[in-house]
Amino acid sequence: MSDVQGFFYPRTATGRASLIPAPPWFYSGDLLTVEYRTDPARVAELLPAPLEPAPEDPGAVALIWADWQSCSTDRSELLDPVRSQYKEAFVVVRCSFQGQVFSRCVYIWVDKDFAVARGIHQGYPKKLGSMWQTRPHAFPHAAPTIGPGGMFGATLAAGDRRLAEAVVTLREPAESNGFVNGHPMAHHRVLPGIERGAADAFAQLIRSGSAEVEAGQAWAGDAELRLFDAPTEELAALEVDEIIGGYFRQVGVVWNGGTVLADDLHLGPQRQEQP
Amino acid sequence: MSDVQGFFYPRTATGRASLIPAPPWFYSGDLLTVEYRTDPARVAELLPAPLEPAPEDPGAVALIWADWQSCSTDRSELLDPVRSQYKEAFVVVRCSFQGQVFSRCVYIWVDKDFAVARGIHQGYPKKLGSMWQTRPHAFPHAAPTIGPGGMFGATLAAGDRRLAEAVVTLREPAESNGFVNGHPMAHHRVLPGIERGAADAFAQLIRSGSAEVEAGQAWAGDAELRLFDAPTEELAALEVDEIIGGYFRQVGVVWNGGTVLADDLHLGPQRQEQP
Amino acid sequence: MSDVQGFFYPRTATGRASLIPAPPWFYSGDLLTVEYRTDPARVAELLPAPLEPAPEDPGAVALIWADWQSCSTDRSELLDPVRSQYKEAFVVVRCSFQGQVFSRCVYIWVDKDFAVARGIHQGYPKKLGSMWQTRPHAFPHAAPTIGPGGMFGATLAAGDRRLAEAVVTLREPAESNGFVNGHPMAHHRVLPGIERGAADAFAQLIRSGSAEVEAGQAWAGDAELRLFDAPTEELAALEVDEIIGGYFRQVGVVWNGGTVLADDLHLGPQRQEQP
Amino acid sequence: MSDVQGFFYPRTATGRASLIPAPPWFYSGDLLTVEYRTDPARVAELLPAPLEPAPEDPGAVALIWADWQSCSTDRSELLDPVRSQYKEAFVVVRCSFQGQVFSRCVYIWVDKDFAVARGIHQGYPKKLGSMWQTRPHAFPHAAPTIGPGGMFGATLAAGDRRLAEAVVTLREPAESNGFVNGHPMAHHRVLPGIERGAADAFAQLIRSGSAEVEAGQAWAGDAELRLFDAPTEELAALEVDEIIGGYFRQVGVVWNGGTVLADDLHLGPQRQEQP
Repeated sequence: MSDVQGFFYPRTATGRASLIPAPPWFYSGDLLTVEYRTDPARVAELLPAPLEPAPEDPGAVALIWADWQSCSTDRSELLDPVRSQYKEAFVVVRCSFQGQVFSRCVYIWVDKDFAVARGIHQGYPKKLGSMWQTRPHAFPHAAPTIGPGGMFGATLAAGDRRLAEAVVTLREPAESNGFVNGHPMAHHRVLPGIERGAADAFAQLIRSGSAEVEAGQAWAGDAELRLFDAPTEELAALEVDEIIGGYFRQVGVVWNGGTVLADDLHLGPQRQEQP
Repeated sequence: MSDVQGFFYPRTATGRASLIPAPPWFYSGDLLTVEYRTDPARVAELLPAPLEPAPEDPGAVALIWADWQSCSTDRSELLDPVRSQYKEAFVVVRCSFQGQVFSRCVYIWVDKDFAVARGIHQGYPKKLGSMWQTRPHAFPHAAPTIGPGGMFGATLAAGDRRLAEAVVTLREPAESNGFVNGHPMAHHRVLPGIERGAADAFAQLIRSGSAEVEAGQAWAGDAELRLFDAPTEELAALEVDEIIGGYFRQVGVVWNGGTVLADDLHLGPQRQEQP
Repeated sequence: MSDVQGFFYPRTATGRASLIPAPPWFYSGDLLTVEYRTDPARVAELLPAPLEPAPEDPGAVALIWADWQSCSTDRSELLDPVRSQYKEAFVVVRCSFQGQVFSRCVYIWVDKDFAVARGIHQGYPKKLGSMWQTRPHAFPHAAPTIGPGGMFGATLAAGDRRLAEAVVTLREPAESNGFVNGHPMAHHRVLPGIERGAADAFAQLIRSGSAEVEAGQAWAGDAELRLFDAPTEELAALEVDEIIGGYFRQVGVVWNGGTVLADDLHLGPQRQEQP
Repeated sequence: MSDVQGFFYPRTATGRASLIPAPPWFYSGDLLTVEYRTDPARVAELLPAPLEPAPEDPGAVALIWADWQSCSTDRSELLDPVRSQYKEAFVVVRCSFQGQVFSRCVYIWVDKDFAVARGIHQGYPKKLGSMWQTRPHAFPHAAPTIGPGGMFGATLAAGDRRLAEAVVTLREPAESNGFVNGHPMAHHRVLPGIERGAADAFAQLIRSGSAEVEAGQAWAGDAELRLFDAPTEELAALEVDEIIGGYFRQVGVVWNGGTVLADDLHLGPQRQEQP
């Protein structure tokens, strides 16, 4: 028997096989965001106690596509980019906890296992999906300009079904790329109990956010967004009542841990029985 | 604020979006197994206290490929088979806990997110990979026979690198498809703490196993196995010193929860710092 | 300079790198078929002269899913099954040429490059797609029975959009698994001219079919079929007016070349100009 | 019966389902190139008559990774980027035909079907593969700078085996990103005859090249390159004897057809019989 090493599983004698190394984690990427308003009741029902709806604009939703390159401290992933590049699409709402407004990711899809594992650590409820977003490029032969009239498309699919598609047409520089994802994140980390029908074995509310962010000029514009239903998804329940805006921004980010907001939470009826 | 539903994340008002439904989970599939002996020290160093090496044949290893169709109680996944079929390869060793011998999966790769999520629940340290194994078929034009001389190949890759390849040539009916994976599983379920450099927030040793198993005739035969190194894998450290045998078997399985063996475990130095 | 070897590209000094070896090609697989009637005009408009609609039931369509294992003469692919297994979905109609009835594949999607290459040789208009079909298994825990009441689902997606989904419920043994795909195939093999706006450089009508077929008991049953539109697909134009039936059958097949029916064909306006 | 439309297969009444629209095709992308020298005999044996080795530096090879966004005239693919983005790795040598030096792609892997189809038209011998190359980004948190010291990695895999991996470290601005891929392309377009054992039904030598190219500042640097063997590949036979250099460059390109250099070519023994 022995002590085993490694931030995440599998833990081994050296820790080399760990699916992800310990933070900090570094990111360079492009964000394409569509913000819109849905029925605030649809947002509220996704917020388990003790979270409450945000006091202002409680139906605001951000659907964000991100095209990332990422690495850990030794940057070795950057030279084996299958371990560095990934794409994601995620849905953010706002909530309130003890009088403070937080952002909260309620749905997210990624396309690599290391990204899934980071999400389990950070409380992002990651599934696998297929995400595509138009890339800007130095030459416009087959690429939009980051400037007025630049058009960016984005799509999300999972389970061989398209779940969302968006088009953002840039209009002008802006202060930010939206407000919904602008707060610290309040996320649950949950593990069901192993016994049949048991309550959660672990449930924790954590606060997390970027340790460092550098961001380029944000651009705002018009946006179209279509959501499609699927048997095991509920994204389309967040119906698009009113588009707030579309945004593009390039960022560099460091993530390096969070803090516990509350432990031993009860997240509601723990096991719905299968009929 | 509201109670949210769902066995796994994301938890919602209805629970429909949960990445996996509550157990029981049902499986029909084909298992291709290669058992071999490696240096027992290589196995021992993968067993965190309080686990100890198995008293007999402590260097025995099983590398198992499985081609699964699976579903939950309502069997809806079977008619949308992108949500039902998956492939996996996993490495099993044996260990001892409080005088009882357990099997333990030390490495595993799957190709669907629902399989990753089940693994997080069950303590299987699942990564994504690309697995292929020869299928038997009613017509032999491009398929082996399940019988003497039937040859089955299997490969495992992850990160665009091949990690293992095997060929099993069936020789005769056998009592079982190996002994290494024949005990209840002793698995850790672990979640690192969210604070920078923190110890694990959750670490639990659980016992799990099939609630029901039906198995067809096992076949035994000769096996070849090659393991290849990769920067983020340690499978090849379990060098093949001596092949025990190769096996093929078709099975039907139900999994329906486990029990806690020990809580609040210390799994060794929790955070190796990045240099 | 040298003679180069190899059935297909890339041709090299040894021929080993050829994307596909020379026929014969061998197949073992499961076929799930839905036959239905659409407006005969929709079929007729897919038949370039000199092909004509079939004299009887000219609106009959078969949408067939196939789950294949395949190999060439030396069977080496079977032990490296990433090079052997593939899935496909294809749409077959009937037509008439010089008084004889032929089957003709008008749309087809596969998931491996060797399958695409075989199609270029055989005149199947193959695109890449994602196909899934329920598998029967010796154990029913998560699999249908090949017998009365056995339910098989199948889906087709391409470009991250679902294009078709079917459910077949077996009812009884049948003489065959449909009639639409029961004739020799009449396929075009076409290569556009390399000059801007040129006519085809090569256009040939060939006859092809299985050199050998062995087939298990066919099963017939009820079928549901839904087709979905997509910007670059026309499958949904073959609307389902009336379901003929659903079928399941396991087969072993050898393909070993065809014959030329007509050379130097004109397939209509060769180059639609982009607006 | 009817005239059918469409540049490529499948041809239909409207042409909408064609796997690719007619040229011109537009590209924006990043090229990472490693040039090296191998035994000139290994290059010569890949050049079927009437091609001859280039008179100078006949063993020069370029292995090029490209990260593309592409579209046709109506640019609709750019807003549905699953139909626009693809990656490739390709091997270029030089040859001589009627006294003129040409470039020639001898091996190429891509990851989308529309790219395969373009290659069939253009004479690129495309297989499917998995390619990754480090991306530059406006923020260096997880990305190299396009400048001195900027490090770019690239990998190529097919059939779940890694075939090549490279690292390029930029040193200084350069006149070009290499010389091997700097000539018009001389490519064969070949289709085997459909009859068992027949000679090619179509074999044509064409000249092709970009109709327009805009290129950013080229950067040159040091390069490492490792090639790995595989059962159905011959890339590793082009052994790296001496690295010439590594290069990075961003480009915008239009491709719009080519010209026929020679028709009715004999490419050597047409059908090696399977043993």
